Amino acid sequence: MTEAGKKAVVLLSGGLDSATALAVAVRDGFEPCTMSFRYGQRHSHELAAAERVANAMGVKNSIVVTIDLRSIGGSALTDDIDVPKDRTTHSMSGVIPITYVPARNTIFLSYALGWAEVLGSHDIFIGVNAVDYSGYPDCRPEFIEAFERMANLATKEGVEGHSFTIHAPLINMTKAEIIRTGVSLGVDYSLTHSCYDPAPGGLACGRCDSCILRKRGFEDAGIPDPTEYAEPG
Amino acid sequence: MTEAGKKAVVLLSGGLDSATALAVAVRDGFEPCTMSFRYGQRHSHELAAAERVANAMGVKNSIVVTIDLRSIGGSALTDDIDVPKDRTTHSMSGVIPITYVPARNTIFLSYALGWAEVLGSHDIFIGVNAVDYSGYPDCRPEFIEAFERMANLATKEGVEGHSFTIHAPLINMTKAEIIRTGVSLGVDYSLTHSCYDPAPGGLACGRCDSCILRKRGFEDAGIPDPTEYAEPG
Repeated sequence: MTEAGKKAVVLLSGGLDSATALAVAVRDGFEPCTMSFRYGQRHSHELAAAERVANAMGVKNSIVVTIDLRSIGGSALTDDIDVPKDRTTHSMSGVIPITYVPARNTIFLSYALGWAEVLGSHDIFIGVNAVDYSGYPDCRPEFIEAFERMANLATKEGVEGHSFTIHAPLINMTKAEIIRTGVSLGVDYSLTHSCYDPAPGGLACGRCDSCILRKRGFEDAGIPDPTEYAEPG
Repeated sequence: MTEAGKKAVVLLSGGLDSATALAVAVRDGFEPCTMSFRYGQRHSHELAAAERVANAMGVKNSIVVTIDLRSIGGSALTDDIDVPKDRTTHSMSGVIPITYVPARNTIFLSYALGWAEVLGSHDIFIGVNAVDYSGYPDCRPEFIEAFERMANLATKEGVEGHSFTIHAPLINMTKAEIIRTGVSLGVDYSLTHSCYDPAPGGLACGRCDSCILRKRGFEDAGIPDPTEYAEPG
């Protein structure tokens, strides 16, 4: 199971899911190289969280790439559009919400692919989840498989027969299962940040889709939620 | 054949191929929206060329996205590595050269996909070419097909049944055929810029792979090369 010394690029947002994906990469014996993005997001507190998480897990190689998603527009996470609040998990399902960032995971994975190729790594970890998620198309298994196939046709490494694997270890887990997995691997979730629309000072709002899914996950896992919310629900 | 008023995102580097792809998009009745990138390339003269080409073709919506490929490193086009000179087209074949930028077309197409989704466009044009090319894996038809498949799984539009098409109209043309096509569509190639390593002032070097392929293309097409070279070959 262990693949000691093999580098993996881990996409790290500073949220609960990506922190867990990082812990899984470490468990599986990879040397994680974490990649985060500054993309004009309103919730830039997540970059500070990404740094805390990477430090806590002893990551030696981490980069933050600045990219400009504002120039293409089109999302409540980068534009001045209100983030929806107080939705039930039922009302989140089946509809792609305004917080969807066009092609975001495609862009993030493309950068990860470029960096993996430079590092000589053939493994990329992404903490997407298709169960307790917000309805984003680029979080589904069929997207991940299609990206992996494309990656192996896109790159020098792929062409030379060194296949890339896109690892999405959380994709079929519930939020509660993700949290239990992370806790068993020593993830300190108090370091992570999930809120789409934090209060001044950085406290989680407790009311956006991401906060609601997070709270529910801790409840379902039967594990105390270490998050401090601006408006406890 | 014409699809009047339908927007298409056209990746425009300012080189010969992308200028021709833009002309083909216009010929096919699309309203072109051009996207160029500032990515730490040494040959930033190409951005000025992209602007000239877009203006000459009456493009109304053009953006330049600044992206940071230097942070992932690994190419003579973004790092301080010498660009190979004076190679024959024979010596270019079969080997992926140092000028290969990891995952570049994947990253560019990912941004184009995001912008297309915001614009409500389902068509993306890219001037890649698999015949007279420098051996890059992400210029091949199988890569373009895999990207298109992935794009339709990645996006809200794709999921809702509005398929994206990645148009690569030059992919099976020789450089001479590309030039003849462009000339027939009124492309002014004196506005374009292909050189990987221009002389101070911006004159094409005449000796890098890109200059050599360009010169050869004009010769084979029997069309005078309007390019002014620093070192005429």
